Formats: sequence, structure tokens, C-alpha cells
Amino acid sequence: MEFKQGDWVRIERNGTVYEGKVMPSMEGYITIKMKSGYNAGFSIDKVRITLLENNGETANGSRNGGKGCKTNEEELPEPGKKLPKIAILSTGGTIASKIDYRTGAVTSQFTADDILAAIPELKEIADFKGRVISSILSENMDSDSWQNLSKAVVEEIEAGADGVIVTHGTDTMMYSAAALSFMIKTPVPIVFVGSQRSADRPSSDNAMNAICAARVAISDIAEVVVVMHGTTSDDFCEIHRGTKVRKLHTSRRDAFKSVNSLPVGTVDYGTGEIKTFIDYTRRGEKALKFKPGMEPKCALVKFTPGADPTVLDYYISNGYKGLVVEGTGLGHISTKWIPLLRKATDAKMPVIVTSQCLNGRICDRVYDTGRDMLKAGAIEGEDTLPETALVKLMWVLGQTDDFEKAAGMLREDLSGEITECTQR
Amino acid sequence: MEFKQGDWVRIERNGTVYEGKVMPSMEGYITIKMKSGYNAGFSIDKVRITLLENNGETANGSRNGGKGCKTNEEELPEPGKKLPKIAILSTGGTIASKIDYRTGAVTSQFTADDILAAIPELKEIADFKGRVISSILSENMDSDSWQNLSKAVVEEIEAGADGVIVTHGTDTMMYSAAALSFMIKTPVPIVFVGSQRSADRPSSDNAMNAICAARVAISDIAEVVVVMHGTTSDDFCEIHRGTKVRKLHTSRRDAFKSVNSLPVGTVDYGTGEIKTFIDYTRRGEKALKFKPGMEPKCALVKFTPGADPTVLDYYISNGYKGLVVEGTGLGHISTKWIPLLRKATDAKMPVIVTSQCLNGRICDRVYDTGRDMLKAGAIEGEDTLPETALVKLMWVLGQTDDFEKAAGMLREDLSGEITECTQR
Repeated sequence: MEFKQGDWVRIERNGTVYEGKVMPSMEGYITIKMKSGYNAGFSIDKVRITLLENNGETANGSRNGGKGCKTNEEELPEPGKKLPKIAILSTGGTIASKIDYRTGAVTSQFTADDILAAIPELKEIADFKGRVISSILSENMDSDSWQNLSKAVVEEIEAGADGVIVTHGTDTMMYSAAALSFMIKTPVPIVFVGSQRSADRPSSDNAMNAICAARVAISDIAEVVVVMHGTTSDDFCEIHRGTKVRKLHTSRRDAFKSVNSLPVGTVDYGTGEIKTFIDYTRRGEKALKFKPGMEPKCALVKFTPGADPTVLDYYISNGYKGLVVEGTGLGHISTKWIPLLRKATDAKMPVIVTSQCLNGRICDRVYDTGRDMLKAGAIEGEDTLPETALVKLMWVLGQTDDFEKAAGMLREDLSGEITECTQR
Repeated sequence: MEFKQGDWVRIERNGTVYEGKVMPSMEGYITIKMKSGYNAGFSIDKVRITLLENNGETANGSRNGGKGCKTNEEELPEPGKKLPKIAILSTGGTIASKIDYRTGAVTSQFTADDILAAIPELKEIADFKGRVISSILSENMDSDSWQNLSKAVVEEIEAGADGVIVTHGTDTMMYSAAALSFMIKTPVPIVFVGSQRSADRPSSDNAMNAICAARVAISDIAEVVVVMHGTTSDDFCEIHRGTKVRKLHTSRRDAFKSVNSLPVGTVDYGTGEIKTFIDYTRRGEKALKFKPGMEPKCALVKFTPGADPTVLDYYISNGYKGLVVEGTGLGHISTKWIPLLRKATDAKMPVIVTSQCLNGRICDRVYDTGRDMLKAGAIEGEDTLPETALVKLMWVLGQTDDFEKAAGMLREDLSGEITECTQR
């Protein structure tokens, strides 16, 4: 059944009902604007759609939805009424930094309250509660920082936050976002945001990024996401899934890109409107679940031609628990590396193979090298980013000591890091 | 002075004169079509341009160029006359592979002669001489392979080849192209070409890539370049500088992209026309110079959050001569890594800092971490790709044992790997 723009429809997905007006939608998707003002996008093949009003005329239902069905939008804050509650957790980074006139370099000194004072527009979007988690440049974050941060995020959600914003240095934001993606199943948005230019520069992106992040934090996207400039202009921000995002430029404001996936959506800076491009978890769809635990003794090894494989021995003999290999092409390493890969898996260290190509999918069944790697126990990372694969490995090995169980988990899509293979 | 499309102009660049008709050009550049049919592009600020004919009318010169000036185009082979000579050196890889029905996997078995037999169109472009250098999958190439290959390339140029094509597996083609870029200053084109899909597949890109490579091999682009599909269609190939190219998709035919630079140009598959976008070295502009020598004891270390810096100690204590660190953002590592970085430079090991962002430029003067890294002796890789930086390091340390001299060379642009900084 075809739906026209303007039709009022009811959409059922996993037992939850959404109602709204059909908006311009991408092929295979239907986007609706709900009464709350929020847009929601759905894969057509994953939902049941019922026409309620034919472009204004009542078809076989009413605007109020079927009796006995809980409509998701009712759970959303209504604009203009009581403001939703956002917890803003600050970890440091450029969005919370200023020039240190002592050294001339940029340091992290601002607290969440400073951010709120600097960007007064935020207070029109939500009631904010600020909390300083740390004040370090993001290159100094580690698996302990990720766990401390995730604990604080969970506390805020348990205390009733309708959404959480994490301000974070951009350097390692993708790693932290991936870490929280694996540790927390969330009923509300958890939004990472940063800034590529410090607040004292006229080209600073901190206000727009923070405002767009706040819009996402009160939206129905209940995932761990990164919200950053979508272009070099101040027009919209992109919403990236925490396991699919990568910093791909050292200095541009639109440095963050979704890899091997469309972004979840965009936020218009002017209107605040959110458009979504892929299926995502809705607000309230999942109950809060927190599984901390991260094995720090994991390493990412980037293969280069002629590289001596004995560096793998270094990791094996120094008590490492698992490795991610960033190979070439479809996921290859030199033939000389394969016995060491075998040695690692014999020592019950899972080895995930990813590609330095970043884009595309691992396939170790095409060439002899790959087939030999699979025989040696390598786990194909599918289309997971190498950085996300490392964080996944650390989390999985923080959950179980059992090699076979870990290998099984590593092959599964746990938090959107592996997308379905539609074509090779 | 402004030049209109269709004007006939004379362009002087480094003492060499080019004449041709002004073509549609990008801002800051002038592109001319020469009598030979080749296009040539120039940065306007690096050349002297004289108007010869105003859109057909003679201004102050003639089509034959000033007397006493050697016009570069005269050195180019004239189409339709005696065919230029191309040496095609085969190293293995998918372009020279077929399914091994024993294992079901793809192996490298074809010789250069097999390629010529399979792609008869090549014989209309040039006289080919085939030579098998190796028959290995490219993940098994190393610095010895690069030197053997470069020796063979130089021999072919000395024997009178007007251009050289190297067929190569795509996995490590970027590393080999960078290696030859540093080892050989060439008066003729040296063109790397490969294939993402083997010849037995209907979607194989080997014929189009090989034909476009041959067009570039007889062009006036006297550089080490990579020629591969520009899009997923069979419309044109891109010509990438050997030090600026990266494989950025595991399986797509247009996997190769220039990073931090436009491609040198494109080759139209249908017409064979070459368009150029950036300044490049012209045929005959540089005399053949061959400087082999590669230090294999160099490593690329990718930094990840929380990673234990003692892996640097592994390299320092195992006789490594230099390191490339793939840091985060503008070129950062954790504060804990800096003492080990210092230890490496104290041991006279150059350490180049590059970014896992790939795009953009290193700048270690903005944040405290970067400034501390510079104090510890780190060399900023500017906008060099991490993979190219590793090959450069290996080559530089193959040329000199002197730490200060090596550091000086590493800071310079040696073969187009560092582009001028126009903006941060």
C-alpha cells in the first residue's frame, strides 16, 4: 500500500504504536511527523502501517490512535509545556576549553555550568543539570574513564534524565561513544558532542553542536550517538551511531562521518527539525541495562607490508587477552604473520580482522591468504570499524573469560557495529 | 591577464615551454590542449603565460612557438605514427589473477603476456614489452620487493621505454607506489594499475583500468601514479599521485582516492582524453635518478586510548631505526606515551606523527599534548598519509644514518607527499 505525503498513519513496530503525518521519505523508509513535533523514520519492511486519514480525510481510524495502544509520542515531552530534563556531563575537550594564557595552548577548564552560561539558548530547550566527570584532553581517556563515564550516565538516567549529553574531546570521542554503546542499553538518548574549534575562535562550532545535541537528547532516538557539524557551514548537524562513527579530518568542523552506514539522521540548526535516514531504537523501547567491564589488555595492530610479525609475540607473551588486526583490502596480512595469528588463537586470544580501507566489508574467503587466516582462527570483523572492533573486544572480554563464548559474541552484531550484508 | 577558452597560449614553466589552446580550467589553474592532443594543467602562479592567438586571431606569436624554445609536446609520441613503447611489469594481484579451481580461491598466475592477450585493445595504444617481476599477492610485498621492482622499472626506462606500467595487487599498491615515488625521479610516466575484481567476473575492472593506465603511460605525466576506476561506473579512471593515494574501500572498483590533494587528473575510458587538476612533473622535465635503499626496521604504531606505551619500548629495544605514530586528531598520543617517544628520539630514532583521521594536517602546536610531543622530538608529518610516512621513513633511513640529516629530510616534501599549507 502506498502512502502519500500528508496522510495520517499509524505505524506498529515491535508492539509499540506511532501516529503521525507522512513526510517526504527515502525509498524503503517512511518518515512521519508526530503530534509532539518529532519526526520518526521507519524501515517499511519492519513495520505495519495503517492509513488513518487520507491526506486529511478520515480512513479507518482517528487521530487519537487505537484504544488500548500505548502511543510512543505520549511519552515524549510536549514542547511548550514542562521542559524535559537533560543531564550534561562534561569530560573535557575543546567544547569545554579555552586558551590557557600561561602556555598559549588550549586546555580544558570549563565545567558544564560554564557551557550553559556560554550558550544561553540551551536553557530554552530543556532543564539542564550539569556534572563534571573529568577535565582531561580526550587522548588521555582509557577504559577506566569509559566505565566511570558510563556509570555517571546510568545514574542520571536512573535519576530521571530524559536525555544525557556528554561533552567530550573530539580526538577519541568515537572510541568513548563505542564503549558506551556496548556497556549501556538505553531507554533515552545518550548524545556525545564536541567542538573542533575552541570557544574563543569566531569559527567555533561549540554553540551549534551543543544546541543540536540538546535537540537530539530530547528526541526519540534512544541510542548512543555523536552529534557534530554535517558540513563546513552552520546549517545542520549529523547524528551518527556511536559504533559507526569516525573522525575523518584533523581540523574541519564536519570531521565526523558515519562509515559503512548512513547517519541516523540530521538536526537542522535553524528549525531544530530532526530527519532520520535509518532505523533506530526508539525512546522507551529498551529498558535500561548496564553492563560495565572492559578488558584493557587488548591491542590494535596495524599491518604494513614487510612488517615483522614478532610484534604479535610481544602481545602474546605480555599477557594480552585479545587483538584487533587492521589488515589490508578485504582483510589480509602477510603469509608470514599467519603462524603468529595461529599462536595467538591457540593461546585463547581472540583475533578480529578489520581493514585499513575502513569502508567496505571484510571477506577472507576470496583469496588464499584470507582462507588461511580463517583456518588460523581469525574472526572477520565484517564491516566494523577497526577502532570500534577494539572497543568491542575490550567489552566482550570484560564480560566473559570463555574463549568460545567471546568468539561467538564477537561474530554477532551487539550494538549496530555490524550492518547486514546487502551486497559484496 | 585573463585568458579566454579557445585562446592559443604559450606557457613557460621551469624553463620548459608548452603551447596549446585554453580549455575550461579550475580557479587558479590553466589547462591547455596541446597539438599532440594531450591536456596539460598548470598552477597560474607558477608559470608565465603569453597570449599567442586571441581565440583564433594571432596576438604576438605563432602556433609554432618561439624559436629556440623546445616545446615539450614535440617530445611526445604523435598518435597515429610510430607507437610509443610501454614496458608492462607484472607483480601479481587480481589484475593478473584467475580462480584456482583446486582451492576455489583467487590466485596470481597470469603473466604480462597473458594480460596483453586478454586485453587486445592495449596493442593499439602502444608497443608493449611484458616482464614478470614476481607473482605474489600484494600483502606479501616488502621493502626488498619494492627495490627489485624499482630496479626493473629503471632498467626499462634506461632501455628506452616511453612509459612503464606496473600491474600490482590493490591491497598494498599505495605502499609500493609511494616507495617508487621516493626511489625514482622519472622522466616518463610510471603507472601502477590493479583490479578489484578478477578477470573471470563480469564486473571485472581489469580491462578498463589497464587501458586507462596505458593512456597515462604515454602521456606527459612523468610521475609515479596509480590509475584506477574513478567511480563505480565504467566512465573514467582517476590518476592519483603515488604518495597521496589510499585504498579506501575493501571491494568497490573506485576504492582508490587521493587524500589531502586532488587527483593529478582523470582519463576518459571512451575517448582516452586526459584532464589534469593539479600541477605535475612533465615528461622529460626531470632526468632519471635512481636511489634505492630502504631500511626495513621501521614500524607504524597506531595509538588507541589507554594503549600501553611499552610497545614503543619493544621497538626501541629490538633495533628499530624509526617509527611512525598514527595519533588522534591533530596528531596526539596519551600523555603517558610521551616519555617513551622521548626515549625513542634520544636513541636517535626519528618519530613521525601522523593522524588516524587521514584527512587534514598535523598541528602539534595547538594543544599542550602536541607541544609536549614536539619538545620530545616528534616530527610533524604535515598532511602526509600514515602509510606514505612509513615508506618515506624507510627510504630516508636507507639513504642516511645521520639522525639530524634524516630528521631534516623527513620534514621536507621529497616527492609530493607534503602539500603546501594553504589553510588550517
